[in-house]
Amino acid sequence: MSAGVVKVGLLGLGTVGGGVIKTIRLQQEKLFARLGKRIEIVKALVRDSEKERAVQVDPALLTTNFEDVLKSDVDIVVEVMGGVEPTYDYVRALIEKGCHVVTANKELLAKRGPELVELANRHQVHLAYEASVAGGIPILSVLRQFLRTNDIHGVRGILNGTTNFILTKMEAEQLPYQEVLKQAQELGYAEADPRSDVEGFDAMYKLYILAQLVYGESLPLANVVRKGIADLSPGHIRIASELGYRIKLIAQAQKTEQGIRLSVQPTMLPLAHPLAQIQDSFNAVQLSGNIVGDLLFTGRGAGELPTASAVVEDLAYLLTQPFTPHPAWEEKTAEAQPAQAEDERVLCYLEGSCPAATPDRVLHFLREAGVTVTKLKVQFDLGGVLRAGLIATGIREEHEAVLKSDFGLDVRCFPLLETA
Amino acid sequence: MSAGVVKVGLLGLGTVGGGVIKTIRLQQEKLFARLGKRIEIVKALVRDSEKERAVQVDPALLTTNFEDVLKSDVDIVVEVMGGVEPTYDYVRALIEKGCHVVTANKELLAKRGPELVELANRHQVHLAYEASVAGGIPILSVLRQFLRTNDIHGVRGILNGTTNFILTKMEAEQLPYQEVLKQAQELGYAEADPRSDVEGFDAMYKLYILAQLVYGESLPLANVVRKGIADLSPGHIRIASELGYRIKLIAQAQKTEQGIRLSVQPTMLPLAHPLAQIQDSFNAVQLSGNIVGDLLFTGRGAGELPTASAVVEDLAYLLTQPFTPHPAWEEKTAEAQPAQAEDERVLCYLEGSCPAATPDRVLHFLREAGVTVTKLKVQFDLGGVLRAGLIATGIREEHEAVLKSDFGLDVRCFPLLETA
Repeated sequence: MSAGVVKVGLLGLGTVGGGVIKTIRLQQEKLFARLGKRIEIVKALVRDSEKERAVQVDPALLTTNFEDVLKSDVDIVVEVMGGVEPTYDYVRALIEKGCHVVTANKELLAKRGPELVELANRHQVHLAYEASVAGGIPILSVLRQFLRTNDIHGVRGILNGTTNFILTKMEAEQLPYQEVLKQAQELGYAEADPRSDVEGFDAMYKLYILAQLVYGESLPLANVVRKGIADLSPGHIRIASELGYRIKLIAQAQKTEQGIRLSVQPTMLPLAHPLAQIQDSFNAVQLSGNIVGDLLFTGRGAGELPTASAVVEDLAYLLTQPFTPHPAWEEKTAEAQPAQAEDERVLCYLEGSCPAATPDRVLHFLREAGVTVTKLKVQFDLGGVLRAGLIATGIREEHEAVLKSDFGLDVRCFPLLETA
Repeated sequence: MSAGVVKVGLLGLGTVGGGVIKTIRLQQEKLFARLGKRIEIVKALVRDSEKERAVQVDPALLTTNFEDVLKSDVDIVVEVMGGVEPTYDYVRALIEKGCHVVTANKELLAKRGPELVELANRHQVHLAYEASVAGGIPILSVLRQFLRTNDIHGVRGILNGTTNFILTKMEAEQLPYQEVLKQAQELGYAEADPRSDVEGFDAMYKLYILAQLVYGESLPLANVVRKGIADLSPGHIRIASELGYRIKLIAQAQKTEQGIRLSVQPTMLPLAHPLAQIQDSFNAVQLSGNIVGDLLFTGRGAGELPTASAVVEDLAYLLTQPFTPHPAWEEKTAEAQPAQAEDERVLCYLEGSCPAATPDRVLHFLREAGVTVTKLKVQFDLGGVLRAGLIATGIREEHEAVLKSDFGLDVRCFPLLETA
């Protein structure tokens, strides 16, 4: 690294990349005063060097050819292009040249993290990725700090702002999923192809990274319970609310006797639960330590500047810390896990218009089958459609099958988060 | 510091001191694995060495004579005895011997911080005090991190758990202050002499420390706006709630054109405000950065283990970081500041039983006086007592005086926190 200048290469110059340039410019003096070094972007890999950009960049810095970045002798690469191919190959080539890495790419870390960590350690370069989880919330550095003095039992949170925005709007305006998704796309809160967000992939990648940090290991992505929000209806949300609950897409890492359990799924939270209060596109992470107790961190989980803030903090961190080896990342396979344990309480939503499906008969069947129902809300509309929500323990797949075949009911069970 | 052992002296062995010993014992292996060093308590200064303690300690470690601590050649002193005299003299003597300091003592820092920082720098020792603000919430280290890349406009929060507990219970159970205070004392949430908490001193000390960190300067304590909760009544709380607000004791640091403004006072928050959701003895700190936006951190602000967690984190931090000078602390005097600016909206509570005080007449007077009232709630009870709450702009002390003299009304104005 030359004396007063840090040469930074950017892979990608989209929303976050533009935010990184803006932040470095805006906070130039502050960064220089603190670091004693000037941060200079010397090359930026883009898909289209002719494209209009929100941030003004010297055209000579732009290239569409990765080899130009590799040749430009950068000290640090900031990877904000996303995806795994060809990103992984680019990052690997730069690490092999002794370049430190700052990345916001959760998918890359969740799919190739163990190799990247090993590679960075071998070449004695920093691999920093605060921006990959929960945007501007400094959850990784806070977790690292707490791990020094606490055993962390578990971490859970709302890690995807797009789905939280959609769920908030579905509840507030009683609109169906598809309509809210369209609005979110128009507002720029959801991508044209929304699957990574709404099917829970994005939250799952972030959860994978949190688990690596907290437990020193994670699960292969195929072993993570993952359910999205695309099949949620205003009926689910309304019944939940009448029973005193709110649906959130909750990502959760727990250590059980069987090993780590990771899940991302629509979950019912009592209205007073701190995570039930997190609305719109906000993210929140709750962690439980044996000494510190429960802590909750809330902030914008995405967006140009909050994410850029985390990237630039990582840059500042690299420049003030000597290299120390990154703890290895491991993956342990686990048996496929059910969405919830058999004896857990669930909120079960039933909907159908078959005359056989009277509340009395449904309850009678469940009681005979050994299911304990502690709370029930029933609605009939003028078209004779029954919508019911019940809080129950002991509902198993076989019961759901009978409710469908004998009572003509669509059934959807949601796990409940009981404790704060 | 001898090779594998860090010698720690404790000043004070009350609740937090006991928690520190428990935490070091409980997390011994973890700390050793991370630090490569064993933390050993070699001396503990106590008031009464015969007293029964919740944590078992070798009696040979206890002393009632500070000189024994000074002679015992400790590497780090953990100061959890509280107060300013003789604490300041003890800490100074230890710094002069080259001893690092970890303290949870907000009063000491707010009253003698500038001198302590200067002294620690002169002797090249660490002065660490994460535990002094918001217990287990790592707000100081998070702020330090954000200050590297963000301009922090302001910080505000609920920094005192005792008063938040009292306000929560007064609202939930519609009980008067004195009765709830008594319950809080019985539960151990409030001290026998509750003044430091309920008059806002505790929160003010913490705010002073936050301001030093964020702005590099603070105000003499006499220049901080400070109001406590002892004169709040169920009537205030009820009218607030009818107008859509909740009273919290809010500590706030802002940079204005006139300089820094620090205040601790009962403040009206819209019910949907994130800080309005913080109940019981929880603390929360909200910070606003120009890049990262708004972040909120919530956790237990006090208690044996959360505070001990912060103390032991500071210990772990000292042991892994080389000494760097602590930024100087400065105090700038400012002119006495009013509780709220003249043109700010306030929630004004009126109470009285004088027949002249009809809502019509009161509103007419205010309108004529140039006060804008945007919202009003009025209650009469059977005894003819009028209780009214109004949201108004432009109420000045002279108006309050007339409401008292001509209408026989008690008046209390609260600032409103408008934005999230």
